[in-house]
Amino acid sequence: MPSTDTFTGYLGLDANSVNGNLVKGTFNPKVFSDDDVDLKISHCGMCASDLHTLRSGWGATPYPVIVGHEIVGTITKKGKNVTQFEIGDRVGVGAQVLSCLKDDCYECTHDNEPYCANKVYTYNSKFENGDSSWGGYALEGRYPASFCFKIPDELPSEIAAPMMCGGITVFSPLKRNGCGPGKTVGVVGIGGLGHFALLFAKALGADKVYAISRSDAKGADAIAMGAEGIIATQTPGWNTKYARKFDLIVSTANNSDMPLGEYLTILKPGGRFVQVGLPESPIPQFGFGPLINMNVHLMGSLLGSRKEIKEMLEIAATKGVKSWVTCYPMEEVNEVLKLMDANKARYRFVLTN
Amino acid sequence: MPSTDTFTGYLGLDANSVNGNLVKGTFNPKVFSDDDVDLKISHCGMCASDLHTLRSGWGATPYPVIVGHEIVGTITKKGKNVTQFEIGDRVGVGAQVLSCLKDDCYECTHDNEPYCANKVYTYNSKFENGDSSWGGYALEGRYPASFCFKIPDELPSEIAAPMMCGGITVFSPLKRNGCGPGKTVGVVGIGGLGHFALLFAKALGADKVYAISRSDAKGADAIAMGAEGIIATQTPGWNTKYARKFDLIVSTANNSDMPLGEYLTILKPGGRFVQVGLPESPIPQFGFGPLINMNVHLMGSLLGSRKEIKEMLEIAATKGVKSWVTCYPMEEVNEVLKLMDANKARYRFVLTN
Repeated sequence: MPSTDTFTGYLGLDANSVNGNLVKGTFNPKVFSDDDVDLKISHCGMCASDLHTLRSGWGATPYPVIVGHEIVGTITKKGKNVTQFEIGDRVGVGAQVLSCLKDDCYECTHDNEPYCANKVYTYNSKFENGDSSWGGYALEGRYPASFCFKIPDELPSEIAAPMMCGGITVFSPLKRNGCGPGKTVGVVGIGGLGHFALLFAKALGADKVYAISRSDAKGADAIAMGAEGIIATQTPGWNTKYARKFDLIVSTANNSDMPLGEYLTILKPGGRFVQVGLPESPIPQFGFGPLINMNVHLMGSLLGSRKEIKEMLEIAATKGVKSWVTCYPMEEVNEVLKLMDANKARYRFVLTN
Repeated sequence: MPSTDTFTGYLGLDANSVNGNLVKGTFNPKVFSDDDVDLKISHCGMCASDLHTLRSGWGATPYPVIVGHEIVGTITKKGKNVTQFEIGDRVGVGAQVLSCLKDDCYECTHDNEPYCANKVYTYNSKFENGDSSWGGYALEGRYPASFCFKIPDELPSEIAAPMMCGGITVFSPLKRNGCGPGKTVGVVGIGGLGHFALLFAKALGADKVYAISRSDAKGADAIAMGAEGIIATQTPGWNTKYARKFDLIVSTANNSDMPLGEYLTILKPGGRFVQVGLPESPIPQFGFGPLINMNVHLMGSLLGSRKEIKEMLEIAATKGVKSWVTCYPMEEVNEVLKLMDANKARYRFVLTN
């Protein structure tokens, strides 16, 4: 049973909400526990997941919903078990607000919370007691303190907010799959996630980072983010030219018609292709040939562990990683949704209260 | 230009040869080099690859061809650079007879010869000078000594021969992907490769090994090979029952209609699915969901390194791994091809001279 506390946010009431039809209104957050904090939300990044969910693209969304999982805010209230934060602390909340955290959960005890079978997403999810979770397109939020993260002083809130999902989604697979000195890394798709992948691949010390996109339209941007250059897959022979060159590719592409079989051929033997964008339809058919003949790994990755989120924020602070963002007042969220859907973000929109 | 030496073997002259129409005849082996050995072939295992190649199933085969890449024989002649063997030594030859072995080849200098871009297969392949390679359905063969392996005295030739391709094809991915104490391993497909995967998974010390097949018809055999039991995928709910149970699955299935998406759901987070059978058609469509939500690896694997072949033979000798074989005189090869194509092997046919 949710709390009778009343918070204000921007509600999606049906699949048409994705077209700029969110409605400002109230909602009852989860019941307040000794482990929770309340936040005054100052910033919330806009993620492609928000649009997939609003339009029921990944399955039927139980409306009403409040999306948004790239949240920064200040703590206004805390439960008595919350000792790591003080009232007034500036914290970030990502796309996951809880895992079971039990001693007998292999994932939770091995820095692998995103793969806990009992995780709770920031929105469109249920806590164990049945309360709904509510996202950050709102003025206030209530979240378990165990998945809130102190933002380093060096990071402005609008820089940090989109890292909470977009940043960690690519940081984790880069880190886990050896991105660093001596490595050549490719990034498929130069959008919100892709721009973070380029920035963090460089921050982690990869020798060479390449952007991979249909055209070279975003080439100058990619180079400004640290790429050696951009590989345009509409150019015939692109994959022959780069055959066996990459140790790791992180794919942020969101389209089902990606040339997956060709991407695999530019990996070195034993190389890894990690998909982080989730298309709404199945991926194209491909043969096992490249997997077998080159021993490559086709993988996916979801968010990142709490340890990785802390490490990412630390690296962003010390290496000066700067998200490319455009800020809008949150009350203009419906206009911003339309811009996002029209692929206008360069490269992340952040809503501010 | 090949040698003018004349060897005798069983030639496939066209795609119809797969139906038991090999023709006994002569061929000219590669030109003899200082690095080669000639073998009197005593045994050759029959591998599914032989049938795929004879029928041009993996692409147009340049006939005439002699297939067979699970060879055991004795050395009858050796080049002057061959110091590791003596005339009369019993050696095995697998599915690969050469890689570039150059100092600047990353794969060849890192025990990864199957992924060298310039590897030469045992048959249906060309050496650098243009000479064809010829397989082991023959009385004699000529191969580079660098890809011949002394067979330990404890291993009878008919036990060792099918390990040279069937054994190493599963041994390598088991070994590279952590098969051992504490691990739960699944083997899809209980045929020639699958039976080796069960045997070697146990020999490598996996806690629990399960066979995975459409029906439980081969359950008793699988248990005799060391499996805890067999999982029948025609039983509704099979994958729910085993959700998140496996660290590693080696798939030897050869059919394009495998339930790949379901297989992935029985892996633990971070688990690995390694395909070693190469279907002649593309694999079924599946969504990225299981890859992303469970961080699993979909991989392939090809043969194994020379170091791994030696290790496999050593483990087979010391742990008493026994291939399940039926031997036939090589002159009956056309009848055996028909039995193989009818899926009658339990679990490997070996041709003997």
